[in-house]
Amino acid sequence: MEGLIIQSVKLEDSRNVLVILDQSVLPETEKYLDLITVEDVWEAIYELKVRGAPAIGIAAAYGVYLAVKQENETDRDAFTKAFAKAKNYLASSRPTAVNLFWALERMEKRLHEAFADGLSVPEVKQQLKKEADKIRNEDEEVCKTIGEHALTLLKPGMGILTHCNAGTIATAKYGTALAPLYLGHQQDYQFKVFTDETRPLLQGARLTAWELQKAGIDVTLICDNMASIVMKENKIEAVLVGCDRVAANGDTANKIGTSSVAIMAKHYGIPFYVCAPISTIDLACETGENIEIEQRSLEEVTEKWYSERMAPKDVKVYNPAFDVTDHSLITAIVTEKGIAYPGYQESLHELFHK
Amino acid sequence: MEGLIIQSVKLEDSRNVLVILDQSVLPETEKYLDLITVEDVWEAIYELKVRGAPAIGIAAAYGVYLAVKQENETDRDAFTKAFAKAKNYLASSRPTAVNLFWALERMEKRLHEAFADGLSVPEVKQQLKKEADKIRNEDEEVCKTIGEHALTLLKPGMGILTHCNAGTIATAKYGTALAPLYLGHQQDYQFKVFTDETRPLLQGARLTAWELQKAGIDVTLICDNMASIVMKENKIEAVLVGCDRVAANGDTANKIGTSSVAIMAKHYGIPFYVCAPISTIDLACETGENIEIEQRSLEEVTEKWYSERMAPKDVKVYNPAFDVTDHSLITAIVTEKGIAYPGYQESLHELFHK
Repeated sequence: MEGLIIQSVKLEDSRNVLVILDQSVLPETEKYLDLITVEDVWEAIYELKVRGAPAIGIAAAYGVYLAVKQENETDRDAFTKAFAKAKNYLASSRPTAVNLFWALERMEKRLHEAFADGLSVPEVKQQLKKEADKIRNEDEEVCKTIGEHALTLLKPGMGILTHCNAGTIATAKYGTALAPLYLGHQQDYQFKVFTDETRPLLQGARLTAWELQKAGIDVTLICDNMASIVMKENKIEAVLVGCDRVAANGDTANKIGTSSVAIMAKHYGIPFYVCAPISTIDLACETGENIEIEQRSLEEVTEKWYSERMAPKDVKVYNPAFDVTDHSLITAIVTEKGIAYPGYQESLHELFHK
Repeated sequence: MEGLIIQSVKLEDSRNVLVILDQSVLPETEKYLDLITVEDVWEAIYELKVRGAPAIGIAAAYGVYLAVKQENETDRDAFTKAFAKAKNYLASSRPTAVNLFWALERMEKRLHEAFADGLSVPEVKQQLKKEADKIRNEDEEVCKTIGEHALTLLKPGMGILTHCNAGTIATAKYGTALAPLYLGHQQDYQFKVFTDETRPLLQGARLTAWELQKAGIDVTLICDNMASIVMKENKIEAVLVGCDRVAANGDTANKIGTSSVAIMAKHYGIPFYVCAPISTIDLACETGENIEIEQRSLEEVTEKWYSERMAPKDVKVYNPAFDVTDHSLITAIVTEKGIAYPGYQESLHELFHK
């Protein structure tokens, strides 16, 4: 299954490079970039060449390791200072990416622990590499386990709809929403997958269709406004989406349009599943009303990708990047610790503390 | 209100030309084309330079008139033969456009009646021009009356969502779904209109946003998958859409994505109004299940408009051009003869025979 061989972020330690799949030029070109300097890593994150919360976290962890690996400083304080400089610089690449900060904080914590344990600078460098590997490997394990749990909700031959890209290239491996599709495919489940193109950035058309096709999974591209007709025509038996943040009551923020799909699924009586690593569940956030929605530039709607403008000059545009799907529309939330069912206030709390 | 001055189809009889607004290059360019030969008219319809069922019917009526106006034949049978040739040729320009055939049939009927009344060829030519004018003027009157009825359902300052383009440029004047917006604007209603971009052909972004902006109506463009969030944020108090065909039970075929908007409107408790000339109500068609959905080319989704392909090569694409909105989702159907409310089997029948 070629799709799962793709690694969107990969350290080649002997060459001192971080190799990333350039997601900004897919599907036209499958290009891998050698990131050498910390500036290269910053730019790759900033320009969305690496995207997907887990993949960004992994890139940042390896990025900060590579930056200090080549540091000649043997003094502990000077090395710590160099680390902090690289860390703060990388943290500025995408100010709203929670996983980015989380991964960098975790690397810094490891650094302090290692020095506290009396390790030397060369030994600390090794610990930092190990920590970055761990972040990567844990993500793969989380995704695989989410996939295994989600697969118990599906049957061979099912028609599945997904939105945006919560796939292998957004993570270490497997993806979140796409993980059960890969695991099912290994067992010859023969899913019939439909992917919304996901305007305005077209992650469904450019990325999900690409990685599923590469894996040999039966995938059909539709425009976002065709989800209703494919559901009505009984082509869809389950919806699988990823998420950016889940509130304590189960309200879920994800790519714009996710709530539309959930409303339609409910209308047609189709189960709607959210695949969510425990790290995206924010029990401190009471409901979706506390989640701020990022507004993005109008050019994404009016001209990006196009050969010419597709809307009149100076037209007003509303371009929210995410929306919140009400918990009442969600059949289940699948995490690596198990599946939460409605009554999310309790079920999420339980899973979280398991 | 400059928007309503635009005429998408206009006969200039003294110059022997039909002037059309080239809708295929909007909004980048506002270009008017002189159609001189019957081939010019055929091409304009075929290439969607003139679009919108009523506008196509009007263009075909004027087109067949212009074709035979320049006919030197004074013999009745030879003239009739020339007319039939032009008519059949124009009818082949868009094989699924019901209004096209309807307008051409009506012109042919007028021709036969005029000859039956003993009129000469030059007199018949005049009658054909009058009939084409009548088709155009009747359409304007129908649209205006639909607008007046629909306006009774709206209040000043309302937030309105529309899908695709059922506007002035798709008709003789006013449009269907947009007619109440123009009439309300003349009375300073200050609507806040949102238009779905309407993938894949972008009629909302390219046409609706353009004509409403030109008329000075407050319009905001959104992607199709943003309808849910604008409804949730209480920005929408009514949805207005046009239609291609209404079945006897009220099921309504319209541009792909219309049923999604209707499902979301129902979920959020927002009224959903269909604006439908009586000519689109097909009492012979029992339910939406009898309406065949046109499937269009996959390139519309994967590459049309784009500077490069936006989906992997050979990806499967499903591209239905229309969908059917279930009658249970429709708050009212507004026609030129009045407003039909649920219990459409009876209410539509009554209006139809009024």
